[in-house]
Amino acid sequence: MDQATLIAKLTGAVGADYIHTDPVALRAYNCDALTIYKGQPSAVVLPADTEQVQQVVRLCREAGVPLIPRGAGTCLSGGATPAPGGVLAVFVRMNQILEIDYENHLARVQPGVVNLHLSRETLPRGFHYAPDPSSQMACTIGGNAAENSGGAHCLKYGMTTNHIQGMTVVLASGDAVRLGSDGDEAPGLDLRGFFIGSEGTFAVTTELTVRLTPNPEGVRTMLACFKEVGDACRTVSEVIAAGAVPAAMELMDRYTIEAVEKVMQAGYPKDAGAVLLIELDGLPSSMRPLEALIHGICMRNACASFRAAQSEAERDSLWMGRKRAFGAFGAIAPAYYCLDGTVPRSKLAVVLEEFDRIAARYGLRITNVFHAGDGSLHPNVLFDDRVPGETARAVECGAEVLRACIRAGGVLSGEHGIGIEKKREMRDQFDAATLGIMERVRDAVDPEGIFNPGKILPGGDVEFPLAGASQPGGVARMAAAFSK
Amino acid sequence: MDQATLIAKLTGAVGADYIHTDPVALRAYNCDALTIYKGQPSAVVLPADTEQVQQVVRLCREAGVPLIPRGAGTCLSGGATPAPGGVLAVFVRMNQILEIDYENHLARVQPGVVNLHLSRETLPRGFHYAPDPSSQMACTIGGNAAENSGGAHCLKYGMTTNHIQGMTVVLASGDAVRLGSDGDEAPGLDLRGFFIGSEGTFAVTTELTVRLTPNPEGVRTMLACFKEVGDACRTVSEVIAAGAVPAAMELMDRYTIEAVEKVMQAGYPKDAGAVLLIELDGLPSSMRPLEALIHGICMRNACASFRAAQSEAERDSLWMGRKRAFGAFGAIAPAYYCLDGTVPRSKLAVVLEEFDRIAARYGLRITNVFHAGDGSLHPNVLFDDRVPGETARAVECGAEVLRACIRAGGVLSGEHGIGIEKKREMRDQFDAATLGIMERVRDAVDPEGIFNPGKILPGGDVEFPLAGASQPGGVARMAAAFSK
Repeated sequence: MDQATLIAKLTGAVGADYIHTDPVALRAYNCDALTIYKGQPSAVVLPADTEQVQQVVRLCREAGVPLIPRGAGTCLSGGATPAPGGVLAVFVRMNQILEIDYENHLARVQPGVVNLHLSRETLPRGFHYAPDPSSQMACTIGGNAAENSGGAHCLKYGMTTNHIQGMTVVLASGDAVRLGSDGDEAPGLDLRGFFIGSEGTFAVTTELTVRLTPNPEGVRTMLACFKEVGDACRTVSEVIAAGAVPAAMELMDRYTIEAVEKVMQAGYPKDAGAVLLIELDGLPSSMRPLEALIHGICMRNACASFRAAQSEAERDSLWMGRKRAFGAFGAIAPAYYCLDGTVPRSKLAVVLEEFDRIAARYGLRITNVFHAGDGSLHPNVLFDDRVPGETARAVECGAEVLRACIRAGGVLSGEHGIGIEKKREMRDQFDAATLGIMERVRDAVDPEGIFNPGKILPGGDVEFPLAGASQPGGVARMAAAFSK
Repeated sequence: MDQATLIAKLTGAVGADYIHTDPVALRAYNCDALTIYKGQPSAVVLPADTEQVQQVVRLCREAGVPLIPRGAGTCLSGGATPAPGGVLAVFVRMNQILEIDYENHLARVQPGVVNLHLSRETLPRGFHYAPDPSSQMACTIGGNAAENSGGAHCLKYGMTTNHIQGMTVVLASGDAVRLGSDGDEAPGLDLRGFFIGSEGTFAVTTELTVRLTPNPEGVRTMLACFKEVGDACRTVSEVIAAGAVPAAMELMDRYTIEAVEKVMQAGYPKDAGAVLLIELDGLPSSMRPLEALIHGICMRNACASFRAAQSEAERDSLWMGRKRAFGAFGAIAPAYYCLDGTVPRSKLAVVLEEFDRIAARYGLRITNVFHAGDGSLHPNVLFDDRVPGETARAVECGAEVLRACIRAGGVLSGEHGIGIEKKREMRDQFDAATLGIMERVRDAVDPEGIFNPGKILPGGDVEFPLAGASQPGGVARMAAAFSK
């Protein structure tokens, strides 16, 4: 099938109002929030339902053209950046909450539902959708499933995979099948769990059944400030080792504090080497002894100041600093590259020191703001994308940071996925036998490689050009827009 | 390679003291706790370490002989019943707790470690291993991983897959690879999650890194008795709908109460139609309002009596009745067939009525004792295996019970796996496209079908003969030994 025929048939499938083929319009879709790599699609389609997705899948397979699903495009590892010439399926029209079953704590949603919209809908009835990525105001539940997204409160509540019971997906054959179930369990091989986090390389998801979580009876948010980041790290490790599981435990280092306080008054002391934002939830009576325990551990680790938010407004302000941290980096650097890796909690302090040494070697700065409780790091390489060669240097610096995580017993990705960004480093993480099994399984699910090629696994012939220094709009600016 | 050469080489691999080939000795391994189906192995090997497992895998592949891993043999769906003529690898020698990392809440164990032994080891330090199948005194963590086992406290704490971070497995190629990680996250395709629950059909697990869970500050165990089982079911549904998540919520019906009280004094009132065993955990101050809420819901649903255990001894006695329920069925029937299916909590009452009608049609009795909180049912078909044809009738009755679960929106298996038992019914649960994907993925992981053939997926040419009525030792007797 030639390009013109494919476009004509796609137009027939989704309707003329719901397909873009104009190169200028398509430029808006040539990357996700990892703007370093670009891939220009040949068409963007906006399907309305599962049947239309099935038609689009069949057409792309017949034409031998890649199909790439895209939610809000907030992915930070290039998961939604199209293989050049591919067809991008965007789910803005499939954004309905189809059913809420409060009795069984479940909601049936379309993939384009914005993460936060589901919680807004269910909060008045005493429930929310627990996974809360920083981009939750924009990102979609379908995208979250593709990336197995995390968030600040995943320390206590678990990642996206723990909150999705069932999915309808369209396979490469064009068949729509149901994975998982509407209950807590599903028999046979766990395809549901295996498809979650496959970054759109296995199938296109067209419906999800997700768990709703009862709202906590109360919340207590604390800010602990430290002179030395190492003391903050040790505090995190000791709190968890003591058996406490806060709802969230976030660490921001000195550069992050500087950036945040430049753009807003979050109330973080400017001379601190690190702050910990710790949140408990539950009954007030159950939080009190936990707070005392945590306070004690902070003090033993040379905590310079410790306070708990006394009002909803103060709590919001403490969190706002954390949630806007990524955007705030724009105040201290022209561009930044947000990484994502994990290390055992007990290794946090040594790894952060290692990052400083790596940054110095590259003549760049690395800031850290991350989910400390689960050892899930977000080192950010600050750079100037207008300086020729500096983007490439930031990318290399980032790769070295990830290898340092692996050496410390950690992994390449906590919650942002592998995408384009880290597929080369998959060889540092896994041996050939493991990568071979991943490849064989992927090929079994999608034998012709139609779905989102060039992602996750190293090798293959899809290339994504690195954005040149001359390109307007740096890494930071687009990512920042979605990271607030 | 002929049979004699294979045996000789296996003997070389594991040592002459650790291989059985005598047909009489092998009879002890011809089934697991689902004793309806039998399969006589050609050899049983007891490997000592990963290297020996690698050798055994390579030899079996070379000889084209199936390899079946076996933990304690407590599986209730035939997962460890060998394909006739296969080699069974039993993990009794690989039963060491290799390392306990209290700081990161992790333990590294060999697959043959008995579930309860890990908790016994860690309890004094304030931790336990949360998944608690009824067979936890005997079953192994490797077997739990293969079946993704549940247990009474999985309502609050999640199934086995939520508690295993990483695994070393030996693939069909003989390569030993590491899946998952020692942290909370693992990048790339989630092979860890996908291999868990694959019932030994993908690989042989030789090491596991599992999560340790902090012991709760306190525990409160309540017994609520109802005249009508429907009222108990509605109570379960309303407790969960109210947003409460007890640590456990178990339902026993009238026949189960009768059986338990025949063999021990658990303190269940003999005239009750159903009892609910409800356990809360946490701080006393957080449990008090929850207990009041649950008590209120019970009373609104015609609860005849409600009491909370006032001592550790009383708590143990309440639980002992539940834990010995399966064994107690021996007091009211010569044999029983323990099923495992799930339904949405809101359908519990109607499904139990449907089971009664099905049992009546087959001239049999069905008792129910199950994890009500997550809608995970264990209907038990009571029968007399000495009556010709009654075993086959019980099997047919069981299949109809499972189809009733599926019709009610539930699934074929909550926690016992599919094994041999339910592979035929997989066609009732899944359409051809879904089964096709499962098959393709399995074939990609194990191209020659070496590992545990004849399990999970329907079709294939491995046959497991149904045990005749003349065979000594009924379904109940062996299963009961492991279900205490």
